[in-house]
Amino acid sequence: METLNLHLTGDMHAVTAAHNMLAAMIDNHLYQGNTLGIDQHNITWRRVLDVNDRALRNIVIGLGGREDGVPRQTGFDITAASEVMATLALTSSLADLRARLGRIVIGYTRDKTPVTAEQLLVAGSMAVILRDAIKPNLLQTLENTPVLVHAGPFGNIATGNSSVIADLIGIHGGDFLVTEAGFGADMGAERFFNIKCRTSGLRPDAAVVVATVRALKAHSGKYKIVAGRPLPEDLLRENPDDVAAGAANLRKQIENIRLHGVSPVVAINSFPTDHPSEHQVIRDIAAEMGARAAVCTHFADGGRGAVELAEAVSEAAEEPSDFHFLYPDTASLRDKIAAVATRVYGADGVSYSSQAAAQLDTYERAGFGHLPVCIAKTHLSISSDPALKGAPTGWTLPVREVRASVGAGFVYPICGDVRTMPGLSANPAAARIDIDEDGVVVGLS
Amino acid sequence: METLNLHLTGDMHAVTAAHNMLAAMIDNHLYQGNTLGIDQHNITWRRVLDVNDRALRNIVIGLGGREDGVPRQTGFDITAASEVMATLALTSSLADLRARLGRIVIGYTRDKTPVTAEQLLVAGSMAVILRDAIKPNLLQTLENTPVLVHAGPFGNIATGNSSVIADLIGIHGGDFLVTEAGFGADMGAERFFNIKCRTSGLRPDAAVVVATVRALKAHSGKYKIVAGRPLPEDLLRENPDDVAAGAANLRKQIENIRLHGVSPVVAINSFPTDHPSEHQVIRDIAAEMGARAAVCTHFADGGRGAVELAEAVSEAAEEPSDFHFLYPDTASLRDKIAAVATRVYGADGVSYSSQAAAQLDTYERAGFGHLPVCIAKTHLSISSDPALKGAPTGWTLPVREVRASVGAGFVYPICGDVRTMPGLSANPAAARIDIDEDGVVVGLS
Amino acid sequence: METLNLHLTGDMHAVTAAHNMLAAMIDNHLYQGNTLGIDQHNITWRRVLDVNDRALRNIVIGLGGREDGVPRQTGFDITAASEVMATLALTSSLADLRARLGRIVIGYTRDKTPVTAEQLLVAGSMAVILRDAIKPNLLQTLENTPVLVHAGPFGNIATGNSSVIADLIGIHGGDFLVTEAGFGADMGAERFFNIKCRTSGLRPDAAVVVATVRALKAHSGKYKIVAGRPLPEDLLRENPDDVAAGAANLRKQIENIRLHGVSPVVAINSFPTDHPSEHQVIRDIAAEMGARAAVCTHFADGGRGAVELAEAVSEAAEEPSDFHFLYPDTASLRDKIAAVATRVYGADGVSYSSQAAAQLDTYERAGFGHLPVCIAKTHLSISSDPALKGAPTGWTLPVREVRASVGAGFVYPICGDVRTMPGLSANPAAARIDIDEDGVVVGLS
Amino acid sequence: METLNLHLTGDMHAVTAAHNMLAAMIDNHLYQGNTLGIDQHNITWRRVLDVNDRALRNIVIGLGGREDGVPRQTGFDITAASEVMATLALTSSLADLRARLGRIVIGYTRDKTPVTAEQLLVAGSMAVILRDAIKPNLLQTLENTPVLVHAGPFGNIATGNSSVIADLIGIHGGDFLVTEAGFGADMGAERFFNIKCRTSGLRPDAAVVVATVRALKAHSGKYKIVAGRPLPEDLLRENPDDVAAGAANLRKQIENIRLHGVSPVVAINSFPTDHPSEHQVIRDIAAEMGARAAVCTHFADGGRGAVELAEAVSEAAEEPSDFHFLYPDTASLRDKIAAVATRVYGADGVSYSSQAAAQLDTYERAGFGHLPVCIAKTHLSISSDPALKGAPTGWTLPVREVRASVGAGFVYPICGDVRTMPGLSANPAAARIDIDEDGVVVGLS
Repeated sequence: METLNLHLTGDMHAVTAAHNMLAAMIDNHLYQGNTLGIDQHNITWRRVLDVNDRALRNIVIGLGGREDGVPRQTGFDITAASEVMATLALTSSLADLRARLGRIVIGYTRDKTPVTAEQLLVAGSMAVILRDAIKPNLLQTLENTPVLVHAGPFGNIATGNSSVIADLIGIHGGDFLVTEAGFGADMGAERFFNIKCRTSGLRPDAAVVVATVRALKAHSGKYKIVAGRPLPEDLLRENPDDVAAGAANLRKQIENIRLHGVSPVVAINSFPTDHPSEHQVIRDIAAEMGARAAVCTHFADGGRGAVELAEAVSEAAEEPSDFHFLYPDTASLRDKIAAVATRVYGADGVSYSSQAAAQLDTYERAGFGHLPVCIAKTHLSISSDPALKGAPTGWTLPVREVRASVGAGFVYPICGDVRTMPGLSANPAAARIDIDEDGVVVGLS
Repeated sequence: METLNLHLTGDMHAVTAAHNMLAAMIDNHLYQGNTLGIDQHNITWRRVLDVNDRALRNIVIGLGGREDGVPRQTGFDITAASEVMATLALTSSLADLRARLGRIVIGYTRDKTPVTAEQLLVAGSMAVILRDAIKPNLLQTLENTPVLVHAGPFGNIATGNSSVIADLIGIHGGDFLVTEAGFGADMGAERFFNIKCRTSGLRPDAAVVVATVRALKAHSGKYKIVAGRPLPEDLLRENPDDVAAGAANLRKQIENIRLHGVSPVVAINSFPTDHPSEHQVIRDIAAEMGARAAVCTHFADGGRGAVELAEAVSEAAEEPSDFHFLYPDTASLRDKIAAVATRVYGADGVSYSSQAAAQLDTYERAGFGHLPVCIAKTHLSISSDPALKGAPTGWTLPVREVRASVGAGFVYPICGDVRTMPGLSANPAAARIDIDEDGVVVGLS
Repeated sequence: METLNLHLTGDMHAVTAAHNMLAAMIDNHLYQGNTLGIDQHNITWRRVLDVNDRALRNIVIGLGGREDGVPRQTGFDITAASEVMATLALTSSLADLRARLGRIVIGYTRDKTPVTAEQLLVAGSMAVILRDAIKPNLLQTLENTPVLVHAGPFGNIATGNSSVIADLIGIHGGDFLVTEAGFGADMGAERFFNIKCRTSGLRPDAAVVVATVRALKAHSGKYKIVAGRPLPEDLLRENPDDVAAGAANLRKQIENIRLHGVSPVVAINSFPTDHPSEHQVIRDIAAEMGARAAVCTHFADGGRGAVELAEAVSEAAEEPSDFHFLYPDTASLRDKIAAVATRVYGADGVSYSSQAAAQLDTYERAGFGHLPVCIAKTHLSISSDPALKGAPTGWTLPVREVRASVGAGFVYPICGDVRTMPGLSANPAAARIDIDEDGVVVGLS
Repeated sequence: METLNLHLTGDMHAVTAAHNMLAAMIDNHLYQGNTLGIDQHNITWRRVLDVNDRALRNIVIGLGGREDGVPRQTGFDITAASEVMATLALTSSLADLRARLGRIVIGYTRDKTPVTAEQLLVAGSMAVILRDAIKPNLLQTLENTPVLVHAGPFGNIATGNSSVIADLIGIHGGDFLVTEAGFGADMGAERFFNIKCRTSGLRPDAAVVVATVRALKAHSGKYKIVAGRPLPEDLLRENPDDVAAGAANLRKQIENIRLHGVSPVVAINSFPTDHPSEHQVIRDIAAEMGARAAVCTHFADGGRGAVELAEAVSEAAEEPSDFHFLYPDTASLRDKIAAVATRVYGADGVSYSSQAAAQLDTYERAGFGHLPVCIAKTHLSISSDPALKGAPTGWTLPVREVRASVGAGFVYPICGDVRTMPGLSANPAAARIDIDEDGVVVGLS
């Protein structure tokens, strides 16, 4: 039996350490006299921990006596939300990582000039701390297929894709490199194409859109689904009409793949409660859109259950690809946001709060305008409103705030509430996990 | 060339993670309704990070809205100061670690009843997080001697000794197991004997007291030595009389070893600026006290430079040992403190602040009275006053506060200021470390 | 020579004391065990001071040890913004004041039940503290006309009108009672009619709308006027066309008076830089609207300069009045807000944030639905957007938040940013005021 | 019936306003760029409110955004503890008040240079705010004797005497001016002689030491008396021996009066539970010390009950007085403290914490060495230890901290815990006070 070290090779810890080293250097800079003139009310770099700790979201630090630093408000995020993690996921070499870390913007002077990790002389140390974390971790599946596990940038505010460096290595390891992109195709695939491929220089030959019977039923808008509650019983009854009623969502996701010139394959992820008539509806939708489709049973049957899918992907990959980005580097940030909002999400347009507008101006002026955009929105709808199902139109994307991950290499507009530090529940998993008398871990499932 | 992973095998990170998981569970418990009735003004468990970050010493957490926890004052310590680290250093097996973690006291109810990690249901998870960290790390010296590197409890407030488990393994690895105890023999050796040996059940066959010419000169009281400044030039001139003038300190340290029934060997750690006449003074002191002595030049000459010492230790270890503890488990905490203070430190007695007295009462009542004591005092003097040199008498040990590391297994009286989170300097090392264009780390020395 | 005691008869101080007594009782209630179950994250009662102190806007209190209270976030407002001040302005007797103080809502339990000052047993003490402050202060003008000066509720969030009790007394003191309402007729008059008259039972016989040449020019939208900067020179040149271009604003304000069935009189407040042709434009607007008008020079000429106005008001007051409220008590809060927004401000409708909608629901459920509404919006436009001049249409009133002054007796929707604690400037008046060697105050002007 | 306005003439409010105006100017100075270089960790000026509000003792201000000031730790004291109150009590004219306000030290620069209210340009405004408060308030007793009520400096940290200006006026109003000094003669009289008389230039003709049977019994050390609990029943039984056993305290207080060259009169404040035999013991003690004595029953009998005392005082005042200060202005602060400690309190000497020693050095260097000292110690013993009864000897006065009220004109060493902001109890008076249906205040007694 193989066991997995919970800490893996410690990448998460290295990211935490590098991130917090920068934070300590910032506060030490304030304490030592602030020769860079950092505006203490405009420090955007927080601290991170790899634990769900809501009490650290909003804190006041630097209390005590003079030796205890300069008081100010700040907080902790979860390590996955660290820009260092996003940077690790998008870098291509140690030298590139070093350069990206130096470009990280930690805040601004009072005249809105960005202050970087390079100016704080800490990017070198951060790179040293990450020197081993940059190496992807080679694991294997239960069927002994090699898997590179590397980096975990938060899908809520970052790319939600695994690392560029793992792809650059993995591409040499077999006939196909398969990589996953978190959330729906409107988010995961769009970010994969426009941010990750732009950075890696790799071109996708095909894209798999995963569909489930229950998801399409949910997109029919006929069911009330509450996170953390069991699914409604109705949803599990044979009902091909309701699957068809949610088709607009799948159609739009297929279109979104095509929009980037890539060949789509629909993977119908099968559940024991599905019915063949329902699978057929999804096949029909795919066919109608000219896309390949395959029913997959890998959860139950292992690799054997994905053979049909593999063959479909293989065929799709043989087709000539016309991959291209949705927008050029040279477009303005506002044009980039508008391109994603209107063409991928189906919005009529974009509205900006006065804060967001001022931030975009600051970023363009600071030379960050060439960066791609990573839109932070709900994953529960193609739109920014979790209540809208299917492929909604007639709505406007409201940008409340815009942040810049200059080291990672993207600007992220925020549309709605984004939580970057989770909390523990009333009955946390940590309370169930233990070691039994034989030293075996129990309570993980 | 071999390089050392900065994170080693991640023990420091695992300790950080386990420690902060407990902290998050505490604040979550308050947030979820505090069914244990924890007194939020008497929570002794803080958080830790492995970075020098003075701005985190005193913080207010739980600000923001209702979803963001319960506001309270707390702070971060350096990871080395974590009771989890002290526990890791004193545990003997995974099952023992699990039990010790459960005994950790995180605070008290309003009627002063201790609240433990076990009650918060988190000790199991902590043990799982530490499952790999409990294994000592096998490294080698430049001469390929195997070395077990494991655990780093803060000498300021904990044992400052490496792990029991590494000793239990290492003892089977050769003719001799050599282990180091931080700070002078009054602190390092006393804690090794009375805390670590009590826990491990191992009995020392001999003890090396390291002496230097410059340390004895400093103990003459004739020189003004300031931390961070170069040594006074005078100190480096040939002056056997000043070495003799500091002899009282060495005599007391030799006595302190004898006090525990162990055979002492004086290792004269040689510096290029030493003079033979000065070494001779130290040899004479040792001889006068009936202890073996050897001049060592291992820093310059490697293992060869310590052959004389090795032979002296080997001889000393052959002598019949009469090892015994300074006090029995059953003595009261006050008697244990008094035993160390008067017999090892040479104090006339001990005085307690009203806070310290109340805490000792609480601990005796809570059943912690059987624990050994780990006295937190300055390492710059055998006394608690850094200004007193030699082997001072006629003074009283002032105990300001007493804390309990119940999981690690000791109570620690605090005599003077103890800092558990360092700060960065005006010119921190982190600003000099970098990766050069070949990916090589520079600036470490 | 008469001098005015800066503290007058101390009403401001009494309001401050009563307000802060309630605050101290709230935090003492939390400290003593919180038997009422107040949700510490939903305490709406802050503290007040009669000083411009921006550093007190957002604070954390209750730090220190257990004897020092329960930590939580709160802040200070300026005394004028106290609900106690608004209550003093709307009360009609000591018994009524006592009852209103008891109804003050200081926060909510976790199930959103309001908690009142009565429940905290402090309304009686507050009434005792205000026992003398309830008496209006009789002063006189430079021409010895008696003036009742009483209460100063903040126009930004409260009525901005002087006290009901002063009106009830003053109405018996001569042929006419003249009272002022702060800000433009869209705010001051609307609140006077719908809140103050509703409370006092008094019916206005006429209403004076003050107009100036420069204000109408400003409403033409042709000038850029910045607070704190001198007026543009252009604005002061003879230009009756620009006065006419701003006429829409005056017309709407005259309509707003008529809307309540009251006879309007336009007072043209004359400045030395005005030109007769410009005054004539205003007279023409008034005439066109069927309203009386009079040019006033009282600032330069004293009472004599307002004789024409006085005669016009006297005539207007003789006309039969048809005074009525804009909405009945029984209308829902949303209907009341909509009535003011669409009929007085000229909005197309009202939009509510999700927070505002939830608060309105809470208030209706708590039985506060019968209260009138006091809309907090900019005074720089009839609309809620300070940039819109004249009498704008085609806009929606955005309600961000809704608060309830249940003791004072109104609910106030907040549309835009509202600051309830001013700050000092870089060159504060306090730095210029002094006492000279003869004990005379200098620097007040 | 006459009623007393709770706010009197508003002096307390004026002191609060002046004090907090200075505080707002300090934080505004930090916010506007801190051109004076105030060390934000060494600002000694806090804020005040006239309410018992423990949650304001330790707070963090300046949170929020950049417009909301600079974050720092501070707190509120009760208004009586304001240095402005102490200044009002010691000033002799408006011009003198203006000058004293300018001398108030609000904190220090990083090189320990004091920063004054004058430098912040706010002393003039403060004087204007206090222009009316400087006038004593003329009230009358139930027997129509005129009484000047003016200023209430906190006895815990300030003089605890009423104002100099009231004495300077009152001295012209009759044959005798009687003024009270708070706490025992070791504190009240010592401060009256050495601080207040030094400031006013007035010389006392006689001094009344108030003694009670129960106080002398308490000083016997035979009874356990707990604040807030009923007196032990034993204490009230006839027991002249116990009165005699507490005599040392009264003897020392009589001596302390004589020490300043003033004629002492012992007022035996009679209680219904006293016995003649007990009064006789006190008369005997006084006689033995050569002091006049009189039994007083004014609490029961009004002015008539104090005739014997009045006659004794009148006689004592006729005796030639040799009033002199305990120490000259020119003595060092340490010598002044030692003089009070050893000669008035009966201590063997004084010990200083390192903080206190550093502060005394700062004050001497800053030119505050000429000021008298106002020692903050317990009022429950002549010593600094509340447990020591009678006239204890063989102890050392421990000075923990020294503060400077430079505007008021004294330096105050702190010996023990001093609380400057009280808290409300579990059953506060404010919860019992109310207005009844006739508008009459109830619940005051």
